[in-house]
Amino acid sequence: MPLFTDLARSLPATVPFVGPEALERQMGIRFKARLGANESVFGPSPKVLDAMAKAAAESWAYGDPEQYALKSALAEHHGIDRANIAIGEGIDGLLGLLVQLTVEPGDTVVTSLGAYPTFNYHVAGHGGTLDFVPYRSDDHEDPEALIARAKALRPKLLYFANPDNPTGSVHDAAVIERLIAETPEETILVLDEAYSDLAPPSALPPIDRMRPNLLRFRTFSKAYGMAGVRVAYVVGEPDAIVQFDKVRNHFGVSRIAQAGALAALEDQAYLEAVTTKIADARDRLAAIARRANMTPLPSATNFVAIDCGGDGDYARALLSAVLKRGVFIRMPGVAPLDRMIRVSAGRPADLALFEDALLAAIDQVGRPKVT
Amino acid sequence: MPLFTDLARSLPATVPFVGPEALERQMGIRFKARLGANESVFGPSPKVLDAMAKAAAESWAYGDPEQYALKSALAEHHGIDRANIAIGEGIDGLLGLLVQLTVEPGDTVVTSLGAYPTFNYHVAGHGGTLDFVPYRSDDHEDPEALIARAKALRPKLLYFANPDNPTGSVHDAAVIERLIAETPEETILVLDEAYSDLAPPSALPPIDRMRPNLLRFRTFSKAYGMAGVRVAYVVGEPDAIVQFDKVRNHFGVSRIAQAGALAALEDQAYLEAVTTKIADARDRLAAIARRANMTPLPSATNFVAIDCGGDGDYARALLSAVLKRGVFIRMPGVAPLDRMIRVSAGRPADLALFEDALLAAIDQVGRPKVT
Repeated sequence: MPLFTDLARSLPATVPFVGPEALERQMGIRFKARLGANESVFGPSPKVLDAMAKAAAESWAYGDPEQYALKSALAEHHGIDRANIAIGEGIDGLLGLLVQLTVEPGDTVVTSLGAYPTFNYHVAGHGGTLDFVPYRSDDHEDPEALIARAKALRPKLLYFANPDNPTGSVHDAAVIERLIAETPEETILVLDEAYSDLAPPSALPPIDRMRPNLLRFRTFSKAYGMAGVRVAYVVGEPDAIVQFDKVRNHFGVSRIAQAGALAALEDQAYLEAVTTKIADARDRLAAIARRANMTPLPSATNFVAIDCGGDGDYARALLSAVLKRGVFIRMPGVAPLDRMIRVSAGRPADLALFEDALLAAIDQVGRPKVT
Repeated sequence: MPLFTDLARSLPATVPFVGPEALERQMGIRFKARLGANESVFGPSPKVLDAMAKAAAESWAYGDPEQYALKSALAEHHGIDRANIAIGEGIDGLLGLLVQLTVEPGDTVVTSLGAYPTFNYHVAGHGGTLDFVPYRSDDHEDPEALIARAKALRPKLLYFANPDNPTGSVHDAAVIERLIAETPEETILVLDEAYSDLAPPSALPPIDRMRPNLLRFRTFSKAYGMAGVRVAYVVGEPDAIVQFDKVRNHFGVSRIAQAGALAALEDQAYLEAVTTKIADARDRLAAIARRANMTPLPSATNFVAIDCGGDGDYARALLSAVLKRGVFIRMPGVAPLDRMIRVSAGRPADLALFEDALLAAIDQVGRPKVT
């Protein structure tokens, strides 16, 4: 009799994302710019920092397991009910709970080939079988093909990110509405809207567009600048939301996270100001890519994917050369998206460091072969 | 086809512990003293607060998913290897992962009747079947009976807390060593040592006492005063520890939590000073109980269980009357332990509030009937 389940023993001890700290230790360097994890170097509102400092001093006490104040503020912000919201330790934590609640060994889950690895990690961790639909040739997720695949397979979950990571692409609300309407009723549409605060409003169906099989995930990690704090939420109908109360870690959202997120939500002026800075940074990144004779993809997020013009081997070599020059960036792991590198928005000084590193890296590895 | 698994739909939407904030909202009061959740009102070291404030300002960035600095410090502190340690979002979070890794629907798990409800919650959440062994008549967990039960049932997990919650009792290291040696090799002994920092050293087997089927859980929530921060760790052999890397939320331990725990570990002088304050508070709580003609149980933790001398109904009535007077305490949920109330260590002012509330509550509900 083994100590761990067959499933657990069959899994690799993997990490969906290697952290920049691990890369620094492996490479023996210190990054001068941290532009790989789509964090917000602009940070959160000063009011968030004040709220977190105050909460830190009170953190001998557990946080409210009902997250009453934060949940009430989110409900008011969105014009929905508290019963429409579950709060968790980042979207990653919520996705893990959702997979636990829905996927049994052998169940099918549909996603896009090259979409969010941590979602796939959780599906694998619960014994689900992943079915992958390629991105469209214009580097958007392919709603039509995903709908067709979902209708054919009737999966437990259908994952879709809008705006998308790692491409930065976005679909209009009408496309998402159609995806919602066409998802089979026995399939939950996992609509990952981590970057929704940075998207044009025309990309987002109203948040009160509810369906029994629709869950929308939002986070304080991206535009709100609180990635290291760990707080996110999921919006849906009460019958689905209540399931999270059956398996969540009730004290898991820290006192600091609850206070910080509440303060962040209350400072929408700051969010607006950061959004402008991020848009400026995207323009600047696009200009850097063009100066390097590479192709920036349009982005509705806080990062820009840059098509390096070669294959995955070229992009990996280029990425490695950029990292060695002290600039942390990442790239998609799967072809054909792996012809890109992905660079997060940064302050002008960060982006200048990236530009220098990119140009020097191109000098080192050469231009891509035309294929 | 239902959206959620049969198991998920069969579970109640429950909370293992109702938070004091929820009680305040239900009762329309504000607690003047918070002595119910075995938090440390003494708080963490000022160095921890400094470290957390600094980390908060950097919390636009994800925390290190390898938790390298904290894990290295823990390894050095205990004289073990980094590969012997997994870090998670409190013991609650780690227990959830352990159950996911070991328990399939229908698998058996053995624990004590009245022991940690959150462990039971996770077992239920993964479809495990709980088997309960009564506490001994001296209100200690019963190692002999647990061993016998484990040998009979060969469960996936055997839970044991030393020191124990909710009784505060403790067993000597020799008893624990015997429990370790006698646990069937196909059963993981879940040794919950949340209160180990407050226990006499004679109660703890050396931390490097490793077995393939032994996992020991430690936390920064109790003596270190960081309950609201969410950071704990599990110690075991590398083959068991590596399993956590297969299912954990890699970025789940916040940047602030990692920095705070590291600073806490480095300030052992503070821990020692707090331990003295907690011991004083235990003595004072015992004296209060005796003045109320009730029986304090000996405690090796940061709380004192008080035998009220009646049955569960009496203790529940008394608890309710104490709560109404603005003092948050808790009590065990299951007979025969439910003849007790449980009060956390506090500052003299907190304990004075408790004494006043207790005496007034006794005036209100009367003395227990002699049974």
